[in-house]
Amino acid sequence: MKVYELGAQDGIDSLRLATRTEPAPGPGEAVVEFHANSLNYRDYMIVARIHSGKKPEERIPLSDGAGEVIAVGEGVKRVKPGDRVVVSFFTGWIDGQFGEHYFGTDLGGGCDGTLAEQGVFPAEALAPIPDCLSYEEAACLPCAALTAWNALVEFARLKPGDTVLLLGTGGVSVFGLQFARLSGARAIVTSSSDAKLARAKELGADALVNYKTTPAWGEAVRELTGGRGADVVLETGGSATLEQSIDGAASNARIGLIGVLGGVDQTCNPIGILWKNIHLKGIYVGNRRMLEDMMRAMASGSLKPVIDKAFAFDEAKAAYHHLASGAHFGKVVIARA
Amino acid sequence: MKVYELGAQDGIDSLRLATRTEPAPGPGEAVVEFHANSLNYRDYMIVARIHSGKKPEERIPLSDGAGEVIAVGEGVKRVKPGDRVVVSFFTGWIDGQFGEHYFGTDLGGGCDGTLAEQGVFPAEALAPIPDCLSYEEAACLPCAALTAWNALVEFARLKPGDTVLLLGTGGVSVFGLQFARLSGARAIVTSSSDAKLARAKELGADALVNYKTTPAWGEAVRELTGGRGADVVLETGGSATLEQSIDGAASNARIGLIGVLGGVDQTCNPIGILWKNIHLKGIYVGNRRMLEDMMRAMASGSLKPVIDKAFAFDEAKAAYHHLASGAHFGKVVIARA
Amino acid sequence: MKVYELGAQDGIDSLRLATRTEPAPGPGEAVVEFHANSLNYRDYMIVARIHSGKKPEERIPLSDGAGEVIAVGEGVKRVKPGDRVVVSFFTGWIDGQFGEHYFGTDLGGGCDGTLAEQGVFPAEALAPIPDCLSYEEAACLPCAALTAWNALVEFARLKPGDTVLLLGTGGVSVFGLQFARLSGARAIVTSSSDAKLARAKELGADALVNYKTTPAWGEAVRELTGGRGADVVLETGGSATLEQSIDGAASNARIGLIGVLGGVDQTCNPIGILWKNIHLKGIYVGNRRMLEDMMRAMASGSLKPVIDKAFAFDEAKAAYHHLASGAHFGKVVIARA
Amino acid sequence: MKVYELGAQDGIDSLRLATRTEPAPGPGEAVVEFHANSLNYRDYMIVARIHSGKKPEERIPLSDGAGEVIAVGEGVKRVKPGDRVVVSFFTGWIDGQFGEHYFGTDLGGGCDGTLAEQGVFPAEALAPIPDCLSYEEAACLPCAALTAWNALVEFARLKPGDTVLLLGTGGVSVFGLQFARLSGARAIVTSSSDAKLARAKELGADALVNYKTTPAWGEAVRELTGGRGADVVLETGGSATLEQSIDGAASNARIGLIGVLGGVDQTCNPIGILWKNIHLKGIYVGNRRMLEDMMRAMASGSLKPVIDKAFAFDEAKAAYHHLASGAHFGKVVIARA
Repeated sequence: MKVYELGAQDGIDSLRLATRTEPAPGPGEAVVEFHANSLNYRDYMIVARIHSGKKPEERIPLSDGAGEVIAVGEGVKRVKPGDRVVVSFFTGWIDGQFGEHYFGTDLGGGCDGTLAEQGVFPAEALAPIPDCLSYEEAACLPCAALTAWNALVEFARLKPGDTVLLLGTGGVSVFGLQFARLSGARAIVTSSSDAKLARAKELGADALVNYKTTPAWGEAVRELTGGRGADVVLETGGSATLEQSIDGAASNARIGLIGVLGGVDQTCNPIGILWKNIHLKGIYVGNRRMLEDMMRAMASGSLKPVIDKAFAFDEAKAAYHHLASGAHFGKVVIARA
Repeated sequence: MKVYELGAQDGIDSLRLATRTEPAPGPGEAVVEFHANSLNYRDYMIVARIHSGKKPEERIPLSDGAGEVIAVGEGVKRVKPGDRVVVSFFTGWIDGQFGEHYFGTDLGGGCDGTLAEQGVFPAEALAPIPDCLSYEEAACLPCAALTAWNALVEFARLKPGDTVLLLGTGGVSVFGLQFARLSGARAIVTSSSDAKLARAKELGADALVNYKTTPAWGEAVRELTGGRGADVVLETGGSATLEQSIDGAASNARIGLIGVLGGVDQTCNPIGILWKNIHLKGIYVGNRRMLEDMMRAMASGSLKPVIDKAFAFDEAKAAYHHLASGAHFGKVVIARA
Repeated sequence: MKVYELGAQDGIDSLRLATRTEPAPGPGEAVVEFHANSLNYRDYMIVARIHSGKKPEERIPLSDGAGEVIAVGEGVKRVKPGDRVVVSFFTGWIDGQFGEHYFGTDLGGGCDGTLAEQGVFPAEALAPIPDCLSYEEAACLPCAALTAWNALVEFARLKPGDTVLLLGTGGVSVFGLQFARLSGARAIVTSSSDAKLARAKELGADALVNYKTTPAWGEAVRELTGGRGADVVLETGGSATLEQSIDGAASNARIGLIGVLGGVDQTCNPIGILWKNIHLKGIYVGNRRMLEDMMRAMASGSLKPVIDKAFAFDEAKAAYHHLASGAHFGKVVIARA
Repeated sequence: MKVYELGAQDGIDSLRLATRTEPAPGPGEAVVEFHANSLNYRDYMIVARIHSGKKPEERIPLSDGAGEVIAVGEGVKRVKPGDRVVVSFFTGWIDGQFGEHYFGTDLGGGCDGTLAEQGVFPAEALAPIPDCLSYEEAACLPCAALTAWNALVEFARLKPGDTVLLLGTGGVSVFGLQFARLSGARAIVTSSSDAKLARAKELGADALVNYKTTPAWGEAVRELTGGRGADVVLETGGSATLEQSIDGAASNARIGLIGVLGGVDQTCNPIGILWKNIHLKGIYVGNRRMLEDMMRAMASGSLKPVIDKAFAFDEAKAAYHHLASGAHFGKVVIARA
């Protein structure tokens, strides 16, 4: 079977197509034939070996894959051949709180990922795809959508009438916007691009802030909420944006800290957390039980991922370059014919 | 000013119209001129003196009233003359958990209620009405809507994809249906009337059970959820229906026990709570902070109460009789010209 | 190796000693050589086939076992030969909320238990024993202690200053008393025996109620708490005692419904749950993560189980009879020489 | 009556003794004759007008006061003359979550405080002192003890077996140490003084770190917990210490951000919050309901504040200087003869 592997050099172009023998399932395992993948910024960081992304040569990249079960090992009852499934981001994290021992089971990081024709995984790591979602759509969910769901639903316990602040229009933020609307909440979206803000409005955003033309965007958010501030923030920028997020937040606001798009070495003064009694929580994707809850919600709410563009398996490097350009709105997908 | 008072006898027809001097606000108080009221089953229990409803003669009945502030006492900053407000069910319960010391501050029960041209209340008990709601609409909210909100949002932390089971189509259940839809949840409604079930479907119910023609309705709910059971139940029937509610509930389901429509002296065997690890909580309306959260949600979701019929102030007894007949779907309202 | 098995008849005396081949570990599994077991009322219900306890002939009984890992299968990193471990009650429930799919993984019920010289289990189901606990002590924990911990700590979130009501002096209640004291809470214990109440007092109970001489024990509990009621109740009696537990409980009290010692077919009127806004939750033992948390707490608090009496492996039937007699206070243990 | 007032200049020595007429209670109010006060670092910041502490001349300083009710206004049922009480830090925050509208009701900051012979307060702001605590002891509780309680019990839901990290040995940290021990948790204390560490050990600290001789104290904490890290941190230093607190924290740790002793203008990189899924919450003292819960816990656990030194009312400036010197361990108190 064909797989992509990280090369010895850093960067997208060092990715290489390789051939491996088709996997056989051990006890408790299942083999998935992939039909679609999606890319996340984290996948770019790994191939570019930015920050802590020092993954070994020959690692198969990508966390997000959807496909069909084609074989199961001894004792597997959870899935059977023919089932349509996605693989959970941390193959070892089934339920409960995050633990550091789950590092090493993150697809395409600590272990081989999904940018391959087939893969073998613990059956417990697989989650059935609802009928209403195609393989391409389902492939968008395990990392970005689940991160937004974990932050907004599991942690922040978003409720109707809350206002959610979403920074930018990357994959996580767009899912955040969709989940906010599904939950009866208001959504405020920031971007440096009026065109992207217009897209966000079409998706249901209640208010928009161009952070280039409105550098004090935290204050703008307070004004847009009648002085109250946002009840929930999906903080995708990290330390670079946190001070303004706090500025735009309400008393007792819940801020899910989920990304470092503003850089990993920034510092800030988060002391506003004290004055406002804010809850800040680090969110690292989520577990398989949350993934199932989220897909159930998407099915019952007829909610579909926003797909920016789909590339063929052979065009995987182009897909990475498209993601790295930042030109996308929503998800970048790789699909088999 | 004109007020209604409980008479010496039990029953709707013993209600009497009386005249009192217009109230003046003490420090921390405000006078409200009422424009609309709504009735709840609890109000019928009080006038009929069913169960523990032994309220004194001359008590002004009704909890639910909406009106305009016409005077405020010393030190009041929360409201000012001209403000459109509703009065919170327990005038002493502002925030936090329920406590028995709040009994005695329940409008129309422990203290004088709102079936009057004017009333004086602690300013802290008043909550501003959003612009999008009329007085008649706002008057539907303090008891029935808040009970449903407290059960579904505060206690059960309803999330998209959950299935909510609603028993019957009384005021609380219809609000429950609306809040379930607003939250991205599925709703299953039971009734003995196919006509009412059809109305529930128009309001967005995903599945319907006629409990007369399907006496094992708990089992039916499990079937309608693919064997999983309902994640959340709004238990308005009390002990009379609890066993079947448990039967229709999922593992770890949250059941808000909010009513005794099936009678107060029933017994049941709630042991299924153990096998299913169910979370059952008694819900007694809610506090003012929840009332404000709920109205914010209704405003941002453009959600309106379902009003069955409006009566004039002089027709108050007819309004009670209409409620007692059980023929209504949604709220019974009393409005000034 | 020697094992006990359920016989074709019901009752303790139908238990039979049998011989099986020593187990070998498959991938992800470990073999434990048992040094000690403890008995729970549930184990008696199973052998007596009371209620739903219709377990198949040849089932190895008992959930609670402690021993040494003597072999591990492929891929096992969690434990290694020589490790001292207990087996978690539900071998499939590692973390997160309970789910019905965990039935079937309950030791000695849905699958073979621990009353054997050796057993093979998923390595994920094993939890290391802290150095300060002997095998006999550790064998007391997986069912009774974890049930009390789950109810008091996980569900009720017991805090210093709370008052806990414990019904009787069986295994779960005695652990409840110890955990209440460890958490800085007050404990009220009921019993029909003044001798057992005296033992409870020695263990730190702050107040005692003999429910034989004080049949209105719920009211007595309210008096012992200055009218406030107990903040937390460990409800081991089920429907038979629930009404009085509610009567003795405070507003917003949390009642963990964990047992059916008063019989499974009782009915009651739990409507007081509504007036008092009580939280009632069914508790079914707990998961492996909770088991580890609990053992960490016991180690740091130097807390030891109360062992009533230890029997030899060959005296297992006598151990069951002793438990069934109800004469014990604390745990009944079976230990190898 | 005699009161202290802030002067026109900044600094302790600008405090001045003044005379005011004795207060009379309005409706809903009570007059308290103070017998004791205690000082907090926040009180020093106000008199020194550090940071946002720009309080007006003539403001009566200090939040913490305990005394006797000597008069009550119309409609007051909560207290009566002769009752021993403390005043809650925010006189307007009775229950529920913090809100910015409570600023302005903080004693000695937004409104007049307790450094006076008498004071008049809303009766709802008063909490009865348990019999086992003297006025001097009770005066230590409203600010420092409640801050520690809110962080550890309300927010972090401390449970037996957790490890709590306490930074330094100021008032909040010493209460944190006592509450940790009362809750069955382990406590690690840091200080730059071995003498203070020795005092902490006497109070029950399980492990000690001198952060002067061990500058990488976060790492030391991880080692002291077998690599796991602290489950709960009482972060009194603010941005200056937050990075190391995160370094010493476990996955999913709860960090209560309660102080700025390390300075208000520091920056840090809190991104470790993401990798460890840490829960960080700003804590601003607490409400009256928490104050009552805490005093109930102290009474049932026979826990007493650690008093460093008591000064006479006339020596108030000396008390402030003693606090500002940092030489104290535990609370600095002012008591009437």
